[in-house]
Amino acid sequence: MVPSPDAAISDLSRQLGDRLAAAAISVITVESCTGGWVAKAITDVAGSSDWFEAGLITYSNAAKQQLVGVGADTLAEHGAVSAATVAAMASGALARWEGATLSVAVSGVAGPGGGSAEKPVGLVWFAWADRRRGVHVPPDTQYRHFPGDRAAVRAASVAHALGGLLERV
Amino acid sequence: MVPSPDAAISDLSRQLGDRLAAAAISVITVESCTGGWVAKAITDVAGSSDWFEAGLITYSNAAKQQLVGVGADTLAEHGAVSAATVAAMASGALARWEGATLSVAVSGVAGPGGGSAEKPVGLVWFAWADRRRGVHVPPDTQYRHFPGDRAAVRAASVAHALGGLLERV
Repeated sequence: MVPSPDAAISDLSRQLGDRLAAAAISVITVESCTGGWVAKAITDVAGSSDWFEAGLITYSNAAKQQLVGVGADTLAEHGAVSAATVAAMASGALARWEGATLSVAVSGVAGPGGGSAEKPVGLVWFAWADRRRGVHVPPDTQYRHFPGDRAAVRAASVAHALGGLLERV
Repeated sequence: MVPSPDAAISDLSRQLGDRLAAAAISVITVESCTGGWVAKAITDVAGSSDWFEAGLITYSNAAKQQLVGVGADTLAEHGAVSAATVAAMASGALARWEGATLSVAVSGVAGPGGGSAEKPVGLVWFAWADRRRGVHVPPDTQYRHFPGDRAAVRAASVAHALGGLLERV
């Protein structure tokens, strides 16, 4: 049986919390298309203040620039939904928030609007940065093209973001 | 029939989106115990980039200080779950994010831990600030004492935060 998206997210959040607590490190989130859902999932878990202190929701381009220092040139050249932008979001969060060891950034086209031939609805970019590797080491980036409607794309994005954190604790 | 918490939140988010779009104003969220859920609910609605640009999740005291400028003295004197702290969160967000007309701040004891005789599990403070009234006008503050477990307290807090925004558009 395939678990529901919500059940999968809950399960990942609990596992992630256990591992972050065991490792005594904390995570910062930087979200565009998921709009706070990754942080919501992390903080669903009781005790999450031990591994989560802060999250940033950078929904507009201006927010990506102001809150985590994504360059205007990066946004102009690559767009908000790109490897370059999520990498800058993840790195920018670690640079500005010294308490966090890991960061995750998410930016995608959740739909129903905003899609294009090059960047269709369902395309989502992810980045994970790790202070232990050094804050100037480029973050790991990945993209996925998720099927389904806005809610399905967002839920799949949350699960993928959490799964990527889990692999990197 | 009483709607489920999730259905009530969805309904409020849709209504709020419609009204913010009609008023052509945008909102910024500053969340502690709800951990991003208010922003998640707002961005569940397609088209939300028209009325939501940025959100801040200030889960720890350090995050409340660093991201929205809550004073160390405010936190020491009143605690994180207090009228003074949520007012500073809501005002700080408006002061730092000029694009937003309204802000909402939430800080409470979601449980299961962290409760005390003075501040029991379920106690949640809210503040709403409105740039049209002037950024130096004290925000409206309210508290509620919600029943139930962590998930219930958080869901009720999200609905109350959204309802308060809706009244103020």
